[in-house]
Amino acid sequence: MKRFQAGERIILYFPKNSYLITLKDNHTFHTNKGQVHHNDIIGKTPGSTIKTSNKINFLTFYPTIKDLIMKVKRNTNIIYPKDAALIIMLTGICSGYKVLEAGTGSGALAMSLAYYVKPEGKVYSYERREEFVEPAKSNLEKAGLDKYVEFKIGDIADKIEETDLDTVVTDIPEPWKTIESVYNCLKAGGFWVIYLPSTSQMEKTVIELDKHKGFIKIDALENLIRFYKVAKNATRPEFEMIGHTGFLIFLRKITK
Amino acid sequence: MKRFQAGERIILYFPKNSYLITLKDNHTFHTNKGQVHHNDIIGKTPGSTIKTSNKINFLTFYPTIKDLIMKVKRNTNIIYPKDAALIIMLTGICSGYKVLEAGTGSGALAMSLAYYVKPEGKVYSYERREEFVEPAKSNLEKAGLDKYVEFKIGDIADKIEETDLDTVVTDIPEPWKTIESVYNCLKAGGFWVIYLPSTSQMEKTVIELDKHKGFIKIDALENLIRFYKVAKNATRPEFEMIGHTGFLIFLRKITK
Amino acid sequence: MKRFQAGERIILYFPKNSYLITLKDNHTFHTNKGQVHHNDIIGKTPGSTIKTSNKINFLTFYPTIKDLIMKVKRNTNIIYPKDAALIIMLTGICSGYKVLEAGTGSGALAMSLAYYVKPEGKVYSYERREEFVEPAKSNLEKAGLDKYVEFKIGDIADKIEETDLDTVVTDIPEPWKTIESVYNCLKAGGFWVIYLPSTSQMEKTVIELDKHKGFIKIDALENLIRFYKVAKNATRPEFEMIGHTGFLIFLRKITK
Amino acid sequence: MKRFQAGERIILYFPKNSYLITLKDNHTFHTNKGQVHHNDIIGKTPGSTIKTSNKINFLTFYPTIKDLIMKVKRNTNIIYPKDAALIIMLTGICSGYKVLEAGTGSGALAMSLAYYVKPEGKVYSYERREEFVEPAKSNLEKAGLDKYVEFKIGDIADKIEETDLDTVVTDIPEPWKTIESVYNCLKAGGFWVIYLPSTSQMEKTVIELDKHKGFIKIDALENLIRFYKVAKNATRPEFEMIGHTGFLIFLRKITK
Repeated sequence: MKRFQAGERIILYFPKNSYLITLKDNHTFHTNKGQVHHNDIIGKTPGSTIKTSNKINFLTFYPTIKDLIMKVKRNTNIIYPKDAALIIMLTGICSGYKVLEAGTGSGALAMSLAYYVKPEGKVYSYERREEFVEPAKSNLEKAGLDKYVEFKIGDIADKIEETDLDTVVTDIPEPWKTIESVYNCLKAGGFWVIYLPSTSQMEKTVIELDKHKGFIKIDALENLIRFYKVAKNATRPEFEMIGHTGFLIFLRKITK
Repeated sequence: MKRFQAGERIILYFPKNSYLITLKDNHTFHTNKGQVHHNDIIGKTPGSTIKTSNKINFLTFYPTIKDLIMKVKRNTNIIYPKDAALIIMLTGICSGYKVLEAGTGSGALAMSLAYYVKPEGKVYSYERREEFVEPAKSNLEKAGLDKYVEFKIGDIADKIEETDLDTVVTDIPEPWKTIESVYNCLKAGGFWVIYLPSTSQMEKTVIELDKHKGFIKIDALENLIRFYKVAKNATRPEFEMIGHTGFLIFLRKITK
Repeated sequence: MKRFQAGERIILYFPKNSYLITLKDNHTFHTNKGQVHHNDIIGKTPGSTIKTSNKINFLTFYPTIKDLIMKVKRNTNIIYPKDAALIIMLTGICSGYKVLEAGTGSGALAMSLAYYVKPEGKVYSYERREEFVEPAKSNLEKAGLDKYVEFKIGDIADKIEETDLDTVVTDIPEPWKTIESVYNCLKAGGFWVIYLPSTSQMEKTVIELDKHKGFIKIDALENLIRFYKVAKNATRPEFEMIGHTGFLIFLRKITK
Repeated sequence: MKRFQAGERIILYFPKNSYLITLKDNHTFHTNKGQVHHNDIIGKTPGSTIKTSNKINFLTFYPTIKDLIMKVKRNTNIIYPKDAALIIMLTGICSGYKVLEAGTGSGALAMSLAYYVKPEGKVYSYERREEFVEPAKSNLEKAGLDKYVEFKIGDIADKIEETDLDTVVTDIPEPWKTIESVYNCLKAGGFWVIYLPSTSQMEKTVIELDKHKGFIKIDALENLIRFYKVAKNATRPEFEMIGHTGFLIFLRKITK
């Protein structure tokens, strides 16, 4: 049975919080629930219950791709796993796919995409703002997914070097400026997924897409997750809810 | 550039409907919008616009995994792509994973799982009702995903032959009867995702899980998709909406 | 105890359907569940169970304002009780209020408003399309609420005769053309509620309101009702749901 | 035109906050945006813009019933205006109705009910916990609505003194214990609205109601409000949302 070793990244799972740490011999991690001694964890199996110095229990797990995304070092808003899940599943992104994304941002979506195109596919991640690239690259490295991502500095409205791509995903404020570039880089029938925060931007995008005539709109949607408290005689939706993240437009390239 | 060939499965995409067909030389497909001659499609590129005998335009694409699931031959309710997407992404199911599902039903979830564990993983699909297995197998074959799925007849409450599994997904009415079986077949820290239609079943499941003490509840949730009409001066949510499919409980195995 | 009499309007309540009829001696009402003899109902108390000629049970009640609205003869979309409820409650419309609405449409909202301003208030209902007024008036008469409504033919963008109104409610496609008229007819601090189907129209309205500077936006919202099936071991949201009716903007007049 | 006078309750409306105060000559109200001098407000018209001592603008309005409810002094959870609005509209509560509510709690629902049964109706408000009655009564007095409410100490499972009531609304944890009492106090065909936080309680209630056979379930539902940010090129749902308040079951008394 697998046991935690020094050098591995693990999740410390408390009832209302969790931490992503890298195990090191003789190290200590400080939380508001007491100290966590790495040596108490090394050698344990995933799912083990351990105590802080304050005798507070926590669980230990290997992180999932969701954990890695949620703990990413952020300098921008990120695309959440719930939205990445739909992007991936509804376009069928899987091992072997060549996928372009813009912009890179904090690298959270690149992480989702890399996780699903591996081991045989590739993600090309474009970003106009040069200073964002190194932090994103570092996030991908820490997740062990950097070898599936090629980072590029540039505006996809100007130029996309790749061709015959399976899928393009954009999280940029003015996707209507990139219609021709995206059209040219996609293979016949390929998907373009556009992520946008506002209905105003969706509307402007669709008006320009209708003029271009190179894409068919499959769906425009948003995804709402409702969490539940489940307990004897007291099951109910949680009182707090995330009301909005973004809208997704799913397009397929057509022959003009 | 890739062109459609006889023997391939393709989607005929009309604005309000779509059909999944297998191309055959000299065949004709009948729709309420006129006849579709297969020979008009063979040799075309994906994304081409073609006309029926009634001069109605339609588009042609290779089907996505979502298309394959939605067009599956059903004898039961299926788990929809929106829910499969969360199951896969939030547990990190990917190439190489060993995943057990029960019950098989029409094979729609097996299809999603097989698509994401390929090329290196495996799905073990259990079903108590023997008569469901052949139709499900046939659905997987048509999707070209059958080699990643091992179908088994039996009740997982009685016996699960596999051990050290990465993930278990159940879509059965009484998951509380399978807690010990699922616990034993999972690797340390592995995920169990429970799909259930009612809050009543969620509550009964969680009460029994609390007694068993072998799992930590990560999340209980439902996923609502809201589709939008996007048009100049007229952007709005669609008037009709699917109000409910099912609830998902995400658990991780812990060391007792 | 009150008993049903000839001349009264009542609801025939079947599990999946209901009918609004006026009781008449010796009359028969035909449904797909058999004939309903009015004489079987006359003299019964509300809540009585009665049988059709096919031995199908139904219940009998006096109609509520919601029943009257839902059974209104329609030549337009109507504002549903769920939205009327918020309009009334969030602005405090009650007995004695002077309320203007435009346009009249089928009179469904006038019905809600009249019901709540009675016995001491008044509804002024404007409609540009002359042919809509008589059917709406007839709907209000049948509901016994016509004496609280004054119908007017005209475009409120051109002229509103009333002044010092408590509240204005508009359900018209271009409310931005009526800003100055509405401003002038409202009392200091009065509410204007704008009902609109699209985010595009909301945005255009708010842009024009910001230029005018005569209103403060209190809230912009939509109201989603989720119905539940409640049953032993099987409680869950209903599978079908109305995904959208309209958006509501709540404004209060401010001193410029 | 009406002007603010000493002794009146008014709302100080800041962009992200509001305060309910009673105007008094020569008084000062302290906020984190500076001091508000009552004399600056007295004599102004509703909707006037006034400045704090820190030169921060705020607006002044007479409070609506919604404002009064949201600013009520609370020692319990309250029923929010969005839910009160549906209770009132879907049962048709209006001037002249005799309505019973239990339990009184902080008096927020009594306030909504009193506002809509006035001037000719009456609210009978029962509460088991004697210490809750005086604070609730004080809340109703401040809102000027106490003369429409009769407060009673007692458990409606034991005894309801009134008969022939139009509507009963309960916000108590075990409504299944009060079925017979509620049945007896309602007029034929009258409504009982049950407010409950959990699906578990809904299910238990409906199971007991089915045994009793004295009520028909019209609807079980919840009401979700989604607020929007509306702005040029940036219209979208708000990021934060209240995920749940409570469920509502609408019943009508039938003849057994």
